[in-house]
Amino acid sequence: MKAILIVADGLGGRPTDVGGKTCLEAARKPNLDELARGGASGLVDPIGPGIRPGSDTAHLSLLGYDPHEFYTGRGVFECLGMGMAVGPGDVCFRANFATVERTPGGLRLLDRRAGRIASGQADLARALNGIRLVEEPGITLEFLPSTQHRGAFILRGEGLSWRVGETDPHEVGALVPDAHPLQWDDAAARRTATAANEFTRKCVEVLEAHAVNRSRAKDGKPVANVLLLRGASRLPHLQSIQALYGVRGAVVAGGALYRGVALACGMERVDAPGATGGVDTDLRSKAETALSALERLDYVFLHVKGTDNAAHDKDARAKTAFIERIDAELFGRLLEGIDWDTTHLAFTGDHTTPADYGDHTAEPVPVLFVGRSVLPDGSAGFSERTAALGGLGRFSGRVLPMLFNYNNWSPKFGS
Amino acid sequence: MKAILIVADGLGGRPTDVGGKTCLEAARKPNLDELARGGASGLVDPIGPGIRPGSDTAHLSLLGYDPHEFYTGRGVFECLGMGMAVGPGDVCFRANFATVERTPGGLRLLDRRAGRIASGQADLARALNGIRLVEEPGITLEFLPSTQHRGAFILRGEGLSWRVGETDPHEVGALVPDAHPLQWDDAAARRTATAANEFTRKCVEVLEAHAVNRSRAKDGKPVANVLLLRGASRLPHLQSIQALYGVRGAVVAGGALYRGVALACGMERVDAPGATGGVDTDLRSKAETALSALERLDYVFLHVKGTDNAAHDKDARAKTAFIERIDAELFGRLLEGIDWDTTHLAFTGDHTTPADYGDHTAEPVPVLFVGRSVLPDGSAGFSERTAALGGLGRFSGRVLPMLFNYNNWSPKFGS
Repeated sequence: MKAILIVADGLGGRPTDVGGKTCLEAARKPNLDELARGGASGLVDPIGPGIRPGSDTAHLSLLGYDPHEFYTGRGVFECLGMGMAVGPGDVCFRANFATVERTPGGLRLLDRRAGRIASGQADLARALNGIRLVEEPGITLEFLPSTQHRGAFILRGEGLSWRVGETDPHEVGALVPDAHPLQWDDAAARRTATAANEFTRKCVEVLEAHAVNRSRAKDGKPVANVLLLRGASRLPHLQSIQALYGVRGAVVAGGALYRGVALACGMERVDAPGATGGVDTDLRSKAETALSALERLDYVFLHVKGTDNAAHDKDARAKTAFIERIDAELFGRLLEGIDWDTTHLAFTGDHTTPADYGDHTAEPVPVLFVGRSVLPDGSAGFSERTAALGGLGRFSGRVLPMLFNYNNWSPKFGS
Repeated sequence: MKAILIVADGLGGRPTDVGGKTCLEAARKPNLDELARGGASGLVDPIGPGIRPGSDTAHLSLLGYDPHEFYTGRGVFECLGMGMAVGPGDVCFRANFATVERTPGGLRLLDRRAGRIASGQADLARALNGIRLVEEPGITLEFLPSTQHRGAFILRGEGLSWRVGETDPHEVGALVPDAHPLQWDDAAARRTATAANEFTRKCVEVLEAHAVNRSRAKDGKPVANVLLLRGASRLPHLQSIQALYGVRGAVVAGGALYRGVALACGMERVDAPGATGGVDTDLRSKAETALSALERLDYVFLHVKGTDNAAHDKDARAKTAFIERIDAELFGRLLEGIDWDTTHLAFTGDHTTPADYGDHTAEPVPVLFVGRSVLPDGSAGFSERTAALGGLGRFSGRVLPMLFNYNNWSPKFGS
């Protein structure tokens, strides 16, 4: 048996999105509607009723891991998703280049994205990775840039803790704060904060002296003269999906965060050519990559991000259009390759992102299961409203375990 | 944005209430039906499926606080709701005047309500507040009467505990028990029980000697010669709604208990002229008070008690009539004042109280959300049966967080 879980980020919407309809309702999506007519749908609260999910916590929950128990911050998923090696004691951060000016009170933030720096990041990273930390013994660092000003940062060493605050002031004009232990009597967090603060001071010296920034300054561009750290995090203690269910699978996702969550759960990573993690992604390529991974593995988790990006931009038209592309290109291609005698499929979102609001909200998300073991519920199509009346009712998280159950892969609780 | 939560106590019913219908189904309620047609409804288990709620635990849960984690007894809510100051170490009780006779075995209960004493309580209270406790050092007491035989009682001092049993035997003919520590090795509870028992002995002496009781005895009325204590309780450790969501609100409720829960969650109290906490309450006045509080605050929690009172009296006709008054007077007035461009509204009950049974039961309660972000589910009206088919499905507690979500007030869990 095979299983495929497809998550469209921020899929859910509100009636305020498109004149009384959600984007999902407004979209032409014959493939999804047809699948819904043969399957069963319902509403899933990604984490729980009335809980507004982040993307990381929502994905943990959909994959079967209660984030109240297992969530240890976002940074580790970004690091894993970017391909960094993360050990059990490492402290992972999300990092971004920014522009600051020196003032008597400290570093004052001028541009949180260093003018969306678009070149030279690898050179700056090489310099940053040369920094040696000495105030606390035995701590090393690693920085890896991703796109534009973004990157991931790891502190490694004995006796570190992820319970430290961030050095990102978020607001232009504010001073860069010291990293602080979140609890005053936590020696490991103090040690970690000391290292993070030593890094902040040294990174300013290294970056200001760097040729990339001298050249940016000459061109009148904001210099990337600090690296801000946030989302401190450690590897969560997850039993792998293989250990729990005895099956092997892969993630197909353009966004590092989603790959990272999947890797932390024990999936392998398969990259689709042309997958960008945005609305311009190649959806046919992702479908083909998923189908070919399914030939060799038991299951695939396929993530698309464009729905959420468009909704964050408050662009209901773009969100609707992306849903139409999911239907035509992603599902169009998947349906050419899926063998329904041996495959169960689930489709859902990780949270609601109303296009008229532009951020995550707590409403439940429609979910659809299809395959020979699924009891068809006679849904007329697939949307928030049809799913609300669907045969699966309303439940919280655990979409992957429910999908696996149709393949008879679930462990028994009790005997 | 503004939000208003309306809870009709004991709203839910059974088909045994009115010849195959619940009181809510039997009632004429054009306003509620119209709201339901434009909103979304569902079933809420106030605490969880199959859990029979108390009023205090149900309200905590509806407001977003898991009572399994946060509930610390009822007395504190009564004390807060009556306007008493409650500190972190105080032990709060519900208290009632009763009639006892001295026997060789102890105090034997004759009338648990002291003939529903209707005058002189303030004088008796003054005498009781003069009692000095000496067996355990440093403990003071405060008693405040409310209606008839009822009141609230606080023990204050270092090293007290709420984990003590009651002194109310509940059954006529039974002996007044000593207060006991609920765990034998709990020194703070022992200290508290010692103080409560010293109070019981001294209060009988003070009350029997009191002029009010000499006059009652002369008139052949049961004397109020003891104060029974129950529902020992302490302040729960709740993060305030303002801390959690960044918004400020008020409670409009005639019953002390409901005000008390709301005050413990950080709401302010607004009193409506003519609100009684009974079926004779002034519902238009409560609506007006809520509307005027909404002008100055972000949200209002409005509680009506008559539905539950009528059901406890097993009076289905009175419960049905009160629901009709809720529709005509409360919602009639609210609908004149609510601006639907900026307001979301939720209506539900805190538990089911079938009129043919006369006490709380565990069935879920219909719930309704209305406002521009709510996806209308095409409900035909508002009742237990229409809500069971509604677009919100079935969920547990957390109605206030779900209401706040529609206003985009929810904090994000994860990132």
